Amino acid sequence: MNTADLLTITSDDLAITRLGERTVDTPLSDLLGERQETWHYVTETDRVMLDVVQGIANKRDVDVAGLPAFNPGGPRRKLFFEPSEVTAAIVTCGGLCPGLNNVIRGLVLHLGRAYGVKRVLGFRNGFKGLTDGSEPMELTEQSVADIQNRGGTILGTSRGNQDPVVAVDSMVRLGVNILFVIGGDGTLRGASKLADEARARGERIAVVGIPKTIDNDIPWIDRSFGFHTAFAQAAQSIRAAHIEASSTENGVGLVKLMGRHSGFIACYSTLASHDVDFTLIPEVPFDVDVLMSRLKKKVEAQGHAVVVVAEGAGQEHFPASDQTDASGNAKLNDIGALLKKRIIDAFGDEPLSVRYVDPGYEIRSVPANAFDAVYCTRLAQAATHAGMAGFTSMVVGQWSGRMVHLPIALATASRNVVDPHGQLWMNVLETTGQPKQML
Amino acid sequence: MNTADLLTITSDDLAITRLGERTVDTPLSDLLGERQETWHYVTETDRVMLDVVQGIANKRDVDVAGLPAFNPGGPRRKLFFEPSEVTAAIVTCGGLCPGLNNVIRGLVLHLGRAYGVKRVLGFRNGFKGLTDGSEPMELTEQSVADIQNRGGTILGTSRGNQDPVVAVDSMVRLGVNILFVIGGDGTLRGASKLADEARARGERIAVVGIPKTIDNDIPWIDRSFGFHTAFAQAAQSIRAAHIEASSTENGVGLVKLMGRHSGFIACYSTLASHDVDFTLIPEVPFDVDVLMSRLKKKVEAQGHAVVVVAEGAGQEHFPASDQTDASGNAKLNDIGALLKKRIIDAFGDEPLSVRYVDPGYEIRSVPANAFDAVYCTRLAQAATHAGMAGFTSMVVGQWSGRMVHLPIALATASRNVVDPHGQLWMNVLETTGQPKQML
Amino acid sequence: MNTADLLTITSDDLAITRLGERTVDTPLSDLLGERQETWHYVTETDRVMLDVVQGIANKRDVDVAGLPAFNPGGPRRKLFFEPSEVTAAIVTCGGLCPGLNNVIRGLVLHLGRAYGVKRVLGFRNGFKGLTDGSEPMELTEQSVADIQNRGGTILGTSRGNQDPVVAVDSMVRLGVNILFVIGGDGTLRGASKLADEARARGERIAVVGIPKTIDNDIPWIDRSFGFHTAFAQAAQSIRAAHIEASSTENGVGLVKLMGRHSGFIACYSTLASHDVDFTLIPEVPFDVDVLMSRLKKKVEAQGHAVVVVAEGAGQEHFPASDQTDASGNAKLNDIGALLKKRIIDAFGDEPLSVRYVDPGYEIRSVPANAFDAVYCTRLAQAATHAGMAGFTSMVVGQWSGRMVHLPIALATASRNVVDPHGQLWMNVLETTGQPKQML
Amino acid sequence: MNTADLLTITSDDLAITRLGERTVDTPLSDLLGERQETWHYVTETDRVMLDVVQGIANKRDVDVAGLPAFNPGGPRRKLFFEPSEVTAAIVTCGGLCPGLNNVIRGLVLHLGRAYGVKRVLGFRNGFKGLTDGSEPMELTEQSVADIQNRGGTILGTSRGNQDPVVAVDSMVRLGVNILFVIGGDGTLRGASKLADEARARGERIAVVGIPKTIDNDIPWIDRSFGFHTAFAQAAQSIRAAHIEASSTENGVGLVKLMGRHSGFIACYSTLASHDVDFTLIPEVPFDVDVLMSRLKKKVEAQGHAVVVVAEGAGQEHFPASDQTDASGNAKLNDIGALLKKRIIDAFGDEPLSVRYVDPGYEIRSVPANAFDAVYCTRLAQAATHAGMAGFTSMVVGQWSGRMVHLPIALATASRNVVDPHGQLWMNVLETTGQPKQML
Repeated sequence: MNTADLLTITSDDLAITRLGERTVDTPLSDLLGERQETWHYVTETDRVMLDVVQGIANKRDVDVAGLPAFNPGGPRRKLFFEPSEVTAAIVTCGGLCPGLNNVIRGLVLHLGRAYGVKRVLGFRNGFKGLTDGSEPMELTEQSVADIQNRGGTILGTSRGNQDPVVAVDSMVRLGVNILFVIGGDGTLRGASKLADEARARGERIAVVGIPKTIDNDIPWIDRSFGFHTAFAQAAQSIRAAHIEASSTENGVGLVKLMGRHSGFIACYSTLASHDVDFTLIPEVPFDVDVLMSRLKKKVEAQGHAVVVVAEGAGQEHFPASDQTDASGNAKLNDIGALLKKRIIDAFGDEPLSVRYVDPGYEIRSVPANAFDAVYCTRLAQAATHAGMAGFTSMVVGQWSGRMVHLPIALATASRNVVDPHGQLWMNVLETTGQPKQML
Repeated sequence: MNTADLLTITSDDLAITRLGERTVDTPLSDLLGERQETWHYVTETDRVMLDVVQGIANKRDVDVAGLPAFNPGGPRRKLFFEPSEVTAAIVTCGGLCPGLNNVIRGLVLHLGRAYGVKRVLGFRNGFKGLTDGSEPMELTEQSVADIQNRGGTILGTSRGNQDPVVAVDSMVRLGVNILFVIGGDGTLRGASKLADEARARGERIAVVGIPKTIDNDIPWIDRSFGFHTAFAQAAQSIRAAHIEASSTENGVGLVKLMGRHSGFIACYSTLASHDVDFTLIPEVPFDVDVLMSRLKKKVEAQGHAVVVVAEGAGQEHFPASDQTDASGNAKLNDIGALLKKRIIDAFGDEPLSVRYVDPGYEIRSVPANAFDAVYCTRLAQAATHAGMAGFTSMVVGQWSGRMVHLPIALATASRNVVDPHGQLWMNVLETTGQPKQML
Repeated sequence: MNTADLLTITSDDLAITRLGERTVDTPLSDLLGERQETWHYVTETDRVMLDVVQGIANKRDVDVAGLPAFNPGGPRRKLFFEPSEVTAAIVTCGGLCPGLNNVIRGLVLHLGRAYGVKRVLGFRNGFKGLTDGSEPMELTEQSVADIQNRGGTILGTSRGNQDPVVAVDSMVRLGVNILFVIGGDGTLRGASKLADEARARGERIAVVGIPKTIDNDIPWIDRSFGFHTAFAQAAQSIRAAHIEASSTENGVGLVKLMGRHSGFIACYSTLASHDVDFTLIPEVPFDVDVLMSRLKKKVEAQGHAVVVVAEGAGQEHFPASDQTDASGNAKLNDIGALLKKRIIDAFGDEPLSVRYVDPGYEIRSVPANAFDAVYCTRLAQAATHAGMAGFTSMVVGQWSGRMVHLPIALATASRNVVDPHGQLWMNVLETTGQPKQML
Repeated sequence: MNTADLLTITSDDLAITRLGERTVDTPLSDLLGERQETWHYVTETDRVMLDVVQGIANKRDVDVAGLPAFNPGGPRRKLFFEPSEVTAAIVTCGGLCPGLNNVIRGLVLHLGRAYGVKRVLGFRNGFKGLTDGSEPMELTEQSVADIQNRGGTILGTSRGNQDPVVAVDSMVRLGVNILFVIGGDGTLRGASKLADEARARGERIAVVGIPKTIDNDIPWIDRSFGFHTAFAQAAQSIRAAHIEASSTENGVGLVKLMGRHSGFIACYSTLASHDVDFTLIPEVPFDVDVLMSRLKKKVEAQGHAVVVVAEGAGQEHFPASDQTDASGNAKLNDIGALLKKRIIDAFGDEPLSVRYVDPGYEIRSVPANAFDAVYCTRLAQAATHAGMAGFTSMVVGQWSGRMVHLPIALATASRNVVDPHGQLWMNVLETTGQPKQML
């Protein structure tokens, strides 16, 4: 987040929708104990401050009433749904991202073990599975026992939204009370429409989102799941490009990474490998001629060089276009191919070995690493608590280390980007030694 | 941190020592640009609030003058040392931890590339290398080129402190201006004494610490380097124990993990694997009989069970002792062996296969994973900036995502522990299904 | 194998039992084509020579009639069983070994896809599952889709044999025609008894073994499955011990590895790491005092040392014992603990850091690596062909790169050991620099 | 090897060149002992039979005099060079391959530790380093201590041969006695010319090759180093393509792998993953229309499909061309791009998600796995023994598990290919279920 964004948010922006009053006693009391009101349970008045820890500020006599705050994630003592009667359902949408199966598994295990939910369904192939009449999978503790060792999603996925009327018909027919939607901003907007449709009909269906974006571009959360795994895998591709480039005469390694609007994967994998000479991200424009001139100097001095480019970088070097994909995202021009060509041109008759690596699918399909496994578990637990408490049209995420609830409207209203004036980009500049401006 | 600790800290606790005024222009201006005062450079008045983001609070007319704040990490426009004349030195102390070589490499690369420092020395075998007359290693970009692929520390390490007088003699003789000390709390206290001795003599020597603890028990920082790698590796051992236990009749997997005072590795690796039934940490006492009774029930119901125990857990079940190791740490009793015996006793003549796994060395010696590689790079950069600016007797760390400077006194005054009433421990309880209390 | 063993084997030793004539046309003809008699199908007269490739020798006018030869593995044009009527069953016995799930998956996929077998059962918990009345699992292409990513065995395992009469009763009741038994020598002897019992009753049940031993000690085969994975994982533990030992003063890394009678894992992991100073295996006796003297000299010269010991090495240093485990194997004395104690004694008051690593369970429970995945696939294919053709009381394995059939009697009559006069042990001596004799 | 090739080889083809008589006592006697003539040392009359183990055949009264046999690898009691006076040099040529640094490290360690060679040089950037006047690197035990953790080659590499006269001038000037050349068939032919040139001048320079080809296409050896690592890494890419394809509607994963003339990587990675539906290799021609028809049927039946294609497959579908690269290899047409286009055409307006993965650089640049680490160690040891004994113009390799010497002429005269009638290809057909012929 750019710091400035923090100033534009009010408490209204952060308000969460709820299906109704919570009247059901939680079955967690055996696990969490009865008496400690202030401990594990979240109470009605708890808040996670946007920029201050509430309790502390209170005790220091700072007036925090006017400061915006998130609705905190976590278990409630009183629930909206009677757990033993709940049918939950899960759907995964959009491109693959490490951790999808961990979230699915976490939801199934937590719904069953902590709340005693007896029926969990998995819609197949994204939102299509809610409208094409296909039979959902029955998800059990047994059927999800080892799915976290496998990349992808056992439910399948697809792009694009579907008719909310038909989708809610399906859910009503199947008796679904809580729908967990795992997907990106387009998907979450679709989820919001499902919640609207259900509410309009008076159906008791909570729609809880777990935001998914390998680019880490969801605003108001510390990071999206799968991001750690993704940049770790990306660093492997950089390593490959660096090994190749440094083993040959005038070797140039060129690595194209994910990052449509946000260069987080490019930045973090650059820091992880410490072997990159130029990192190009969508947030920082560059002139190709200046880049080529700098690149040639670096190769002269060092014998080789490594360039990392996010797929959304340098789009200003292409003619404008209106094409979009099935998810409604603008089609990107191929900056990797352009740079490869320009590098070959720039070296002309001089010796040159370009090694172009484009590891997109290999990054998207790996299983989650241990950190993302932890994060997916915690997201699944928070989403389960939110659903049982009757929150809807919202997503779960982490803010300053605390689980919080975000309205879908807020989570899809903007994008998290690398701040060109912030600490991360500066660390990248320090690591690559590239100039702050290549314009 | 327990939330309550936040209330006990004042701005005085957070004050950082500095060798003198900064009068030298930074060579980073080529990289970072000249004009943007408010951008990448840290100014004299910048602070990282302990519990609020300063700039925001200011703009909202909250009086933050009385709130404690950290001295921020990052580059200063004016330096204390003339970079081209600096001799820097690095020393690694105490037990192994993933990332040591990444920090060493980060320091060498950043000192050379960003500041043009020409001479970096590596003392051998911990503080011993400052006093035993051994020749330090010359560290160059070439000599550290691939050390991050290797676990351990290329400098060697040892436990215990040495005579500060002799150590400062060595540094003066070698012309060392900045000493980077990578070690745990005992080591950092020793580093503080070196800084005191140097100041007492009027020597211009900055002592900058990078806190190292595989247990993640340094207070006032988000996490210590190597921790992510450690719990990821620990999760592999849990996986092994789970596979073994679940393949045999009445299989019980017992995994002893690091964690003398803090159960972070046990908690995070539990969440990562989602296959643990009982997690035991030093912060939460338990009764062995109650544990055995619960364990037997779990094995009956499930056919197998997995127990994870931090090495410092359950020390109340042993007679008190005063023994300490060379680092001055109290010697722990072997809770793993005790539990193994008690499990065997508990099952008596019933079928039982106990699989006891103690992966300590294998965890400590692996290379850092990608996240820790990033973090080590950023710590090395922050430490370099701090040293060049003349800060001393302090450590670098991350607080709420921002690099900050901490006085050594504060960093060694307490320990970061798992809050038994906090979100992490609750997530563990939800994941294992173990009761909140086993007393 | 010691070369000398080759001389003791006759064609009778290599003869394979068959249930009866093969009269059924194979469904593979679509896949493999009709006309090429000499190509993919194995004919009645094909043999894999023990020490010569038959066809070649023939063409060179060498009389090979008197030379022993294996019955080759591979598909037959004529089968004993009608595939569409076959019920196959699988059982896994004894300790865990990487690749068990790969073999199970390979059998299920190959039985279904290549032969159209419709029903495959998995007995639970080793031979117990054939006699305790438990319901076997139904194994389908879907249920085994990702099990190869998981270590252990999805069927569970146990040690020891069961009453063959009851076991054959079970198989008859369930209609099992082919039983695939995956286990070590004790298990295979048990499998042989099942085949005998079935034959005595006139039941058409083929018993086909896939030999399993993490120690690689099955004779007459190039290697056992899981062995490559095992020594790769063992090399990781050696790396850990080496990193620890070389980072401390007078560090001694001591690694205890599997290897009851055969030191293959110790030898191969030594060659893989190239950082071991002493490798101790059951096949080569050593004097502990001589070893300690050599070890101290090595530590003096090098600052540290690494010792690798197979669990079965040095048993001559313990009093004789008659104890056995549930599999009937003699209980080994703990050579690792003895060496650790002797090392501590040997250094007395001198500085010393012993790092003792015992990674047994972590090695046994990892998933198979790519090579073992290939080998398990090929073993499963060969076993399927053998079963469909009606061979029984035999195992499949690879000999000089060719799949062959071995009588169980031969496969369990002796053990593959490291030849102390052979190339492998010599490579170890060259790599460690240890003396040929430490007596 | 095709079996038929075995018939064309005579003992003359297998004869190895030697610089002269061996008169120097080996320093290995301390290590290997004095008395056991028949043990570890290789004697003048030892041979490794092409198709029979000599000793056995002898004892069975088979006349083996007329059978061809390899000169065995291993240490000789008498050497040609006085080890303490030897200067050895190493050069790596051609494309990257996992294990290059392991071979370099193995040579340096073995030359120094086993023979006491004091000076080992590394020529930079392939054969260029022998003629461009650049200073070779001094290689020491210290400088190669951890290079095996890194992919690529620390010496750099280049393609193409150089003037043998200038190269031998360099070696004479530097006092090089043994040159170890690590490279493919073009490189080895160049090495042979260096040996010829040296011999013509009467220089005592042995040229020993270690054959390198990631494609595993060297004839007369069991496998080339790096091959195991390569197909393991390739299996990862197949896994990614399979995960992607199976998560989307009508998903087709298309993976292009190395394999100019030989499909070994494609075959082994297919067997390792067990998730491939069509494997295309240079040895087996196919009709694209037939393939497309089969592919569409598979996608209809299964919902997705995975195609693996070796880069040299299907070259018959392109117009003939005479272009070659710097190594003299014919430039291949891009079968991956052609298939991708044809798949898109074949599906027309039907839903289709093609995932094209081309992981070449990522495969070539990874560090060697444990098995290849062992094999590289053994190759380095055998090459060292060969060089010290004065063998020249030859390469080392493994044949039926034994280290042997091959004349360069033989090693470069043909290629190892997948036998379309052999066991490996059959295992592939069984695993994919693809038809034997797609013509």
